[in-house]
Amino acid sequence: MTSKTKRVGLLTGGGDCPGLNAVIRAVTKDLLRTHIEVVGIEDGFLGLIEGRMRPLGYDQVSSILAVGGTILGSSNKANPAKFATELDEHGEPIWRDVTQQCLEHAEANGLEGLVVIGGDGTHACAMPFVEAGLPCIGIPKTIDNDVYGTDVSFGFSTAVQVVSDAIDRLRTTADSHHRALVLEVMGRNAGWIALAGGLAGGADVILIPEHPFRVDRVVDKVERRIKRGRRSTIVVVSEGAKAMGQGPMVRRLDPTSPDPIKFGGIGAWLADEISTHSSVDARNVVLGHLQRGGTPVAFDRVLSTRFGHHAAKLWNQNVHNRMVAVQADRMVDVPIDESAGKQRLVPLDHELIAAARSVWTDFG
Amino acid sequence: MTSKTKRVGLLTGGGDCPGLNAVIRAVTKDLLRTHIEVVGIEDGFLGLIEGRMRPLGYDQVSSILAVGGTILGSSNKANPAKFATELDEHGEPIWRDVTQQCLEHAEANGLEGLVVIGGDGTHACAMPFVEAGLPCIGIPKTIDNDVYGTDVSFGFSTAVQVVSDAIDRLRTTADSHHRALVLEVMGRNAGWIALAGGLAGGADVILIPEHPFRVDRVVDKVERRIKRGRRSTIVVVSEGAKAMGQGPMVRRLDPTSPDPIKFGGIGAWLADEISTHSSVDARNVVLGHLQRGGTPVAFDRVLSTRFGHHAAKLWNQNVHNRMVAVQADRMVDVPIDESAGKQRLVPLDHELIAAARSVWTDFG
Amino acid sequence: MTSKTKRVGLLTGGGDCPGLNAVIRAVTKDLLRTHIEVVGIEDGFLGLIEGRMRPLGYDQVSSILAVGGTILGSSNKANPAKFATELDEHGEPIWRDVTQQCLEHAEANGLEGLVVIGGDGTHACAMPFVEAGLPCIGIPKTIDNDVYGTDVSFGFSTAVQVVSDAIDRLRTTADSHHRALVLEVMGRNAGWIALAGGLAGGADVILIPEHPFRVDRVVDKVERRIKRGRRSTIVVVSEGAKAMGQGPMVRRLDPTSPDPIKFGGIGAWLADEISTHSSVDARNVVLGHLQRGGTPVAFDRVLSTRFGHHAAKLWNQNVHNRMVAVQADRMVDVPIDESAGKQRLVPLDHELIAAARSVWTDFG
Amino acid sequence: MTSKTKRVGLLTGGGDCPGLNAVIRAVTKDLLRTHIEVVGIEDGFLGLIEGRMRPLGYDQVSSILAVGGTILGSSNKANPAKFATELDEHGEPIWRDVTQQCLEHAEANGLEGLVVIGGDGTHACAMPFVEAGLPCIGIPKTIDNDVYGTDVSFGFSTAVQVVSDAIDRLRTTADSHHRALVLEVMGRNAGWIALAGGLAGGADVILIPEHPFRVDRVVDKVERRIKRGRRSTIVVVSEGAKAMGQGPMVRRLDPTSPDPIKFGGIGAWLADEISTHSSVDARNVVLGHLQRGGTPVAFDRVLSTRFGHHAAKLWNQNVHNRMVAVQADRMVDVPIDESAGKQRLVPLDHELIAAARSVWTDFG
Repeated sequence: MTSKTKRVGLLTGGGDCPGLNAVIRAVTKDLLRTHIEVVGIEDGFLGLIEGRMRPLGYDQVSSILAVGGTILGSSNKANPAKFATELDEHGEPIWRDVTQQCLEHAEANGLEGLVVIGGDGTHACAMPFVEAGLPCIGIPKTIDNDVYGTDVSFGFSTAVQVVSDAIDRLRTTADSHHRALVLEVMGRNAGWIALAGGLAGGADVILIPEHPFRVDRVVDKVERRIKRGRRSTIVVVSEGAKAMGQGPMVRRLDPTSPDPIKFGGIGAWLADEISTHSSVDARNVVLGHLQRGGTPVAFDRVLSTRFGHHAAKLWNQNVHNRMVAVQADRMVDVPIDESAGKQRLVPLDHELIAAARSVWTDFG
Repeated sequence: MTSKTKRVGLLTGGGDCPGLNAVIRAVTKDLLRTHIEVVGIEDGFLGLIEGRMRPLGYDQVSSILAVGGTILGSSNKANPAKFATELDEHGEPIWRDVTQQCLEHAEANGLEGLVVIGGDGTHACAMPFVEAGLPCIGIPKTIDNDVYGTDVSFGFSTAVQVVSDAIDRLRTTADSHHRALVLEVMGRNAGWIALAGGLAGGADVILIPEHPFRVDRVVDKVERRIKRGRRSTIVVVSEGAKAMGQGPMVRRLDPTSPDPIKFGGIGAWLADEISTHSSVDARNVVLGHLQRGGTPVAFDRVLSTRFGHHAAKLWNQNVHNRMVAVQADRMVDVPIDESAGKQRLVPLDHELIAAARSVWTDFG
Repeated sequence: MTSKTKRVGLLTGGGDCPGLNAVIRAVTKDLLRTHIEVVGIEDGFLGLIEGRMRPLGYDQVSSILAVGGTILGSSNKANPAKFATELDEHGEPIWRDVTQQCLEHAEANGLEGLVVIGGDGTHACAMPFVEAGLPCIGIPKTIDNDVYGTDVSFGFSTAVQVVSDAIDRLRTTADSHHRALVLEVMGRNAGWIALAGGLAGGADVILIPEHPFRVDRVVDKVERRIKRGRRSTIVVVSEGAKAMGQGPMVRRLDPTSPDPIKFGGIGAWLADEISTHSSVDARNVVLGHLQRGGTPVAFDRVLSTRFGHHAAKLWNQNVHNRMVAVQADRMVDVPIDESAGKQRLVPLDHELIAAARSVWTDFG
Repeated sequence: MTSKTKRVGLLTGGGDCPGLNAVIRAVTKDLLRTHIEVVGIEDGFLGLIEGRMRPLGYDQVSSILAVGGTILGSSNKANPAKFATELDEHGEPIWRDVTQQCLEHAEANGLEGLVVIGGDGTHACAMPFVEAGLPCIGIPKTIDNDVYGTDVSFGFSTAVQVVSDAIDRLRTTADSHHRALVLEVMGRNAGWIALAGGLAGGADVILIPEHPFRVDRVVDKVERRIKRGRRSTIVVVSEGAKAMGQGPMVRRLDPTSPDPIKFGGIGAWLADEISTHSSVDARNVVLGHLQRGGTPVAFDRVLSTRFGHHAAKLWNQNVHNRMVAVQADRMVDVPIDESAGKQRLVPLDHELIAAARSVWTDFG
């Protein structure tokens, strides 16, 4: 007969994502229900390194479902396997492996396991603890929706809603002034937010990292729309989308030209290209952190609660070192290192791309 | 070799549902792209009976993605197989089968098929046309999410968001006054909206038609929360939820007592029960039509577009008499009469119920 | 030379109202800035009677600006001048004046004055303390916008926005089904919410308590709109609006007929009248507590902060027994009992009524 | 006895602003009510120059109250007194005065006057027509709220709400990562949006064009907050705010350094300054066109309707060449050239600045 884990540490790592608090609440309430204590570790793995943690009870989590951000704080860079607090004589950081120090803090606080909410970077940080015999459960967090192993994660739907709302706002301005509007959204390697958000907002052009685009085709589309009497063109572009091709259209992508990122990002660059090469005035909006914060939409609150419940269930079943996931709309779990080094990109034959093309959206 | 359908009629039947216009837009734009003309039939089957229809082109559908309702209008009761325009000597309607008249209107307008957006009632109305050789494609519309054959339909997510937003608003008032608040939501036979909306809003009690509840348990929960220092209790109840049991708690359900529906609905009745039988003042809000109208959330806009695209694809493939559907997160199609006489209810062992219980939500 | 008050008690009384927390934050932060301590009294005057209070510092108020409700709690009925904790032999409450007990609690906690946030009922409760030499500053709270002495108070704009948003949602449903929709909003004696909310939402008919309406005129309007091809009619009605006149239209208002309030309120009654006496199906939505809770709109957050600042300024200037107010868009103050026994009703020649008539809105 | 104007032209000029359609609706419905025909001129004065106009009736305006943008279109640069369609041999525009051509188009369309909705630039364009005997009524449009002569105009409240909502979203992200977030908002010369929006969102620092700020003070504030355990700092900055002072802090403002505007705007520059000179990571969001589009908030819909009604009333009273305005919360009118060459800036002793300081907001 196995004995149940009695005290678990919980941390959130990486960038902000709507629904983090909803997961914290669900994990905590569910574990408390089965008499497992929950300890919140502050600022991701940094808190584990520095021994900063505090008990989480009903009072700490009962009002946080609708609150954006994470009550535990997060940190992007604290990796126990490679951590620096000092610089050498050349000003370079002196990297050390502080895993043992973390394990001591865990033991001192009576932690018999960890629930780690984060992206693949955060889950990778958990592996040394798994190997050292401290069981871990991973919960995927990825606003870009690019964590391998799960079809979807919390926060993504909220980001898509923010994009859709933004397009609703921008469309009327674009119409009033016969303009093109370029909306730059999150997505360094994966275009899910641009694709779903653009589809929801009725964008005329969607540009994603998986499909390098031709600027001349975007300009053509803008011109064709004007000729047919359309009042405006809305372009949604992932921050990581890339232009390709030859000729004056992409001269700014030449090594001797300003880099689009330095130019202020792909959106600013593209708006400038359209203004320069078409008869239409183009403007640019970068949504940036507006996609990360704020209260999660209902879908993400439900998904966060399902994730939290599944993680707690695994603890209660003594199933360890798994990442909870959604596959084909069902809650499942996969090895915690499943997503290591992989990314979930948009396949170019994806049904959403076909759906977008069916309502006359171009992909450049 | 088969020839392709060249002109299709499109109608929306039954109650309002966010996303109807998004479906109309997607079907129309996609069919136009493949050179099939689309004719919009007004007010559901009533327009087919009366021969009221108009062409749908780009200009009619290009700005409707975000608009609630249906630009075609709808009607709840017009069934061509049993239709009355006159009363007999006793004032009773004289029912007639006007299917033939509809077929003549369809032929006169050159319609070679119908796309029918509606619930199982609407799809049932389409069957005589299928049998008469006029091919039909069904698109499920059900704000309650209870159409058999599809895991989800458009409009449902918007309704869930409305419920979640309402709970966010009500919670602060309930907290300020140490009250119980009963929120009555849609769902005559199926509790999906109450379940997902209550989960998203963090409701303390969720009461659904599939699980007759005991009023004394709801009252107990309210009392226990007060004793533990909780500032309020939020109860979400489906309009079709039923109380069960014996004794004074349910005396109002006796034949000699006011019927809960006549009392103003289950929510008003339940709030009165809680106020009467606990130390807590309870209030009631009925969301009603607020759940049906308005702009669809991003998820529903995407789903509507996917549905529309799949319906158009079926036409282009000469596949007829199917209803488009989502199963395990994939777009599929099933026989158009698949849902006839069946309903998709909440199974009591559903994962969402377990998830809700895991965050201490009771089901009475 | 007068010495400055050094510790002030703060309480919120009466019904919930968006912006209460914003006022609490502003009063507290501003007084702390000038080295005056603030003590929060729980649940309105009930906390003063029972001696329940707690210090308010930066940590308590820094995150509450956007939060609905009141962190202090409120109570509707606790009047120190007439308070009952026991029943007599006939089951009637034994009323006592507990003002002295309150003064002792105030003194024990070092309170040298009170800031009282509430409607005219709450301010009336403060008068015995003013008379006993405990200085008070009043801040008007009235979601109905009917407190005499100020042109506007916080919470009202949020309620108007909720009404406007609701009409946006209801309009598309009404259009799709050629219906009349009756939206019942707050306003027992004053119709400000119905007037401004109806104007913002483009209601076709607005019915307010100040102007008894004729049901036949409302029915006529509905019929005229149908005849002219309008797809729907939206009626906004204050909960306190009254029907007048003779004949079958108002038969339900006869002593022998169900009372509209018991019928489920004026909105339900009116929808039933329209359905019965016109060719149009009418439905009813009661917004109720949805108007009271939730995060305040930007205007109310600004106004709350202005109110809080003005109240703090009065303390710092040793000006007591005043109620802060807005007149002609300027922050002013009036005697704290200014509003006693008076109400700010909608004058029938008000500019907003003329503006509504100018866009073809009727007032029945 | 004077005869009444029987047909009026209506145009919208300058940048987009929520509420334009609500004004168009109100002017049109009110004038129709008094049997004056309304003709919509397309794309501002450009449509008058080119003779592009169309009748506005009930059907054109009845559904536009909640719609952002302007159904008439706008143009920023078309001034009849100085208009160019050709270039000279050096490629410079050949400016001509086309006022006479406009007057001919007005006469050909039977226009007996103009209602001109726009900022002071648009109203200046109307003066030659006033002088030529074509009466004009001006309606002020200024999202920055800087038109002289009126306390407020429509669109401003919506922009403030967008800013407030954005801060709500950004705060949780900033808190989770212990960051500073710089939000750049509209306001080239006047800081009203930053001031009211920052106050509504609870910004820690507000920087406006009227008050050149010191970067070192902003950095100090960020550092002080971190030392006191605050989790984040939110800075709201008008696009036209200016840094002042000496030393390394403002080195980028030296002539030899990148111009803040070229750097990507004052917000991007300031975030970089904070990141460089404090221990805190700062990020930047530029709201841009998100502030201009979308559905107007309830306040702006009401104000737009009041403006439209007052303009129509002036026509009906044969009062011409006035601009409608709000002063001390009352609808008034002033000479149409009242605002020419003047701007309504934020006085540094304004009550809103005092209110912001009272809740510990700094102005750098």
